[in-house]
Amino acid sequence: MNESNLDATFAALADPTRRAILARLALGETSVTELAKPFEMSMPAISKHLKVLEKAGLIDRGREAQTRPARLNPAALKSAAAWIEEYRRFWEESFDRLDVYLQKLQADKAKQTQARQKTSRKKEKS
Amino acid sequence: MNESNLDATFAALADPTRRAILARLALGETSVTELAKPFEMSMPAISKHLKVLEKAGLIDRGREAQTRPARLNPAALKSAAAWIEEYRRFWEESFDRLDVYLQKLQADKAKQTQARQKTSRKKEKS
Repeated sequence: MNESNLDATFAALADPTRRAILARLALGETSVTELAKPFEMSMPAISKHLKVLEKAGLIDRGREAQTRPARLNPAALKSAAAWIEEYRRFWEESFDRLDVYLQKLQADKAKQTQARQKTSRKKEKS
Repeated sequence: MNESNLDATFAALADPTRRAILARLALGETSVTELAKPFEMSMPAISKHLKVLEKAGLIDRGREAQTRPARLNPAALKSAAAWIEEYRRFWEESFDRLDVYLQKLQADKAKQTQARQKTSRKKEKS
């Protein structure tokens, strides 16, 4: 997927109605009338959102002139997820390194405390 | 993360320059001057993109007045990734079911072919 497709995919996802439509379509193919039901929105408004999703490659529409059922097209969302995952990996690796460092710091501190306790016990005995 | 934050995050990601800035910041904290170098873009244009990323919670900026170094803030992108992953899971499960179905179809077809070959071999022998 090229950069302009990613632009369109992320732009399409930047709207709560369109995300809700995708959430509904994750359950299966649906007619536009059925899709519009839970939204307090005119059919033209819903159709406009569907056009944005279709242009971004996030959904496919059936050819039946009356209903044009909509279904999810996972490829576009997979590319968007892949882009995010690539950078998440970087961060998580940085966090892992930070985590190892903090654990080492704590272990060193525990050793120092033990050593100090030993020394003070020796002093008490002598 | 609420819906309006997701709106801002996805909208911020819908631009190739902003995605390139995030990719650079995944390597580590950077000053704005350093960040601007690879882009054929004015400093005010870069600053504008950084403001969009900061508002979306995708980056944090340092307080040093002159440089205001930028660094990634993984939380926002993690929420965006979580949203996508939830629906990817649905599709992948549907694909898995489809895959099992197709494997069953192929296995049935192979059995039928074997049965037919047996029958025709028997006929040849008799």
